[in-house]
Amino acid sequence: MAVAAVIALALHLSSASLSAAQVDPLGAWNDGVAKRAIVEFVHVTTTPGPAFVPPDERIATFDQDGTLWVEHPMYSQVVYCLDRVPVVVKAKPELANQEPFKTVLSGDREAIAKLSKHDLEIILAATLTGMSTDEFVADVKGWLATARDARWKRAYTDLTYLPMIELLKYLRDNGYKPYIVTGGGQDFVRVYAQAVYGIPPEQVVGTAGGIKYAYDKDGKPYLTKEPKLLLNDDNAGKVEGIHLMIGRRPFAAVGNSVGDQQMLEYTKAGAGSRLSMLVLHDDAEREYAYGPAQGLPDTKVGTFTQALFDEAHRDGWVVISMKRDWNRVFAFEK
Amino acid sequence: MAVAAVIALALHLSSASLSAAQVDPLGAWNDGVAKRAIVEFVHVTTTPGPAFVPPDERIATFDQDGTLWVEHPMYSQVVYCLDRVPVVVKAKPELANQEPFKTVLSGDREAIAKLSKHDLEIILAATLTGMSTDEFVADVKGWLATARDARWKRAYTDLTYLPMIELLKYLRDNGYKPYIVTGGGQDFVRVYAQAVYGIPPEQVVGTAGGIKYAYDKDGKPYLTKEPKLLLNDDNAGKVEGIHLMIGRRPFAAVGNSVGDQQMLEYTKAGAGSRLSMLVLHDDAEREYAYGPAQGLPDTKVGTFTQALFDEAHRDGWVVISMKRDWNRVFAFEK
Repeated sequence: MAVAAVIALALHLSSASLSAAQVDPLGAWNDGVAKRAIVEFVHVTTTPGPAFVPPDERIATFDQDGTLWVEHPMYSQVVYCLDRVPVVVKAKPELANQEPFKTVLSGDREAIAKLSKHDLEIILAATLTGMSTDEFVADVKGWLATARDARWKRAYTDLTYLPMIELLKYLRDNGYKPYIVTGGGQDFVRVYAQAVYGIPPEQVVGTAGGIKYAYDKDGKPYLTKEPKLLLNDDNAGKVEGIHLMIGRRPFAAVGNSVGDQQMLEYTKAGAGSRLSMLVLHDDAEREYAYGPAQGLPDTKVGTFTQALFDEAHRDGWVVISMKRDWNRVFAFEK
Repeated sequence: MAVAAVIALALHLSSASLSAAQVDPLGAWNDGVAKRAIVEFVHVTTTPGPAFVPPDERIATFDQDGTLWVEHPMYSQVVYCLDRVPVVVKAKPELANQEPFKTVLSGDREAIAKLSKHDLEIILAATLTGMSTDEFVADVKGWLATARDARWKRAYTDLTYLPMIELLKYLRDNGYKPYIVTGGGQDFVRVYAQAVYGIPPEQVVGTAGGIKYAYDKDGKPYLTKEPKLLLNDDNAGKVEGIHLMIGRRPFAAVGNSVGDQQMLEYTKAGAGSRLSMLVLHDDAEREYAYGPAQGLPDTKVGTFTQALFDEAHRDGWVVISMKRDWNRVFAFEK
């Protein structure tokens, strides 16, 4: 009887795992080169054999803008900063007649879209610093709860790619620790990364500024965000960020633009089996299409050059075609 | 019969955990204020109740030098740097007649001990940068394998405090994630932190320099350690490092000198139950005794002022007396 009970239990467990296995963990991915490369990579690095990777070395790094969520027509964080300009100007009224604040306040979308990189840097510095870290978190949370993107009329955090959410979970279920490595603000992304991606603050590497340590009137310490750049987490800075905050080379990395080039090279150059992947935005209908690799005009937001495309092929990176490889883009799609 | 088998299994499991519980996980700690504070803190933060902390928020930060291992008469990393001076001078012979290299090469221990902070910074910059990150790891490993401290004639990594190794394990066993937050070099400590403390590279926060991304003759990327300071992880810089690399406030922090003051304040100022602790070096026989809090002359290495001692009492930090609280200091002691 005891043996029968054990067998019954074993059968139950076995059928439970079988039915779990029947649900494809990468169901939003079409069967193709990209999906097969992912499954093969995970298989060989988690199965005893020459490419096996010990669990604590299973590091995967993901760019965010254009890789995990929509980056067009403008990075969500830049929208946040533009939305914050009136608050900053209210506190410092003299800015109202100074550029680039004047243009932002005018509400002229075309003029705003034409702001230079230097203009944007001034806006980012003015809107992302000078408050305490606690105030910043509260403000970003408030903005995320109410701001809606212009095309889908949805919260920005709804605009994450379902196949990538699946991939993050699939990697985690196989012992991988996924990090976000973003050119965006580390403090900004950390506000929602746990809820949206299941990625805790300590696994978010991003562009980071200094903080000032001070005491309030009750002698309690608090931190203020300073306009001092600690880490510019883009291009080679992404590898610097990985070295600084992770301290080991990833086994897998995913990006979508020239800012991810060095991260993908560095990952792929490691010993053993490594997976470097690039998301190609080639689906204007369901999302956007951009980058000269598709014969489309280039973009300042998420630049994907022909040279990057060529390097991907030469270096064995997997190119993910949004159009061909994803049968669903967003979770809210039917 | 099935029921009997289940009961037998339950009894077996129960007795196994009982016998495990009989081995005190903090056996090197004497029963006293410090040990009780640790056990109480872990109990209330891991048991359902008002002070419960969700597992993913259980962050603990440890200073290294003087907290996890011996720092007197000189930080181990400084010894490493001094030992590396001949190699650096061989590559750049013109340094042989320049200070402070000339003094280091003279081997005059008294003169070396008198080198200024500025002299040491020159030596650190010259010996810790300019090589690839891979070369650096290999060099530190080689040094650790052969270098012996003058007093115990043992590898520096043997000079870790057994009670702290127990505390790290005790915290981990209770769902805490311990980090090292050190004024020492992040790249240096990462070489041995996993093997010595069970702390992986991504949980080591330390003073960090920039890296340069370049390609070797085969087009493979490699990283060079640059003489550019990214993070000075000492004093308020420790809180900056915690914010940068962990992104949340620790629930427990342990230090031993003025360089840890802000980390301990910041930790203790958080909501709920928080544990801030200071190791007092008051055991000249088994280790060292220093700091004016003991009426001893102050030291440049691990400064522990009367003001820090006073703040500890005022702010409810636990002071760990090496002499009274630890029945063993090192694992190699009988």
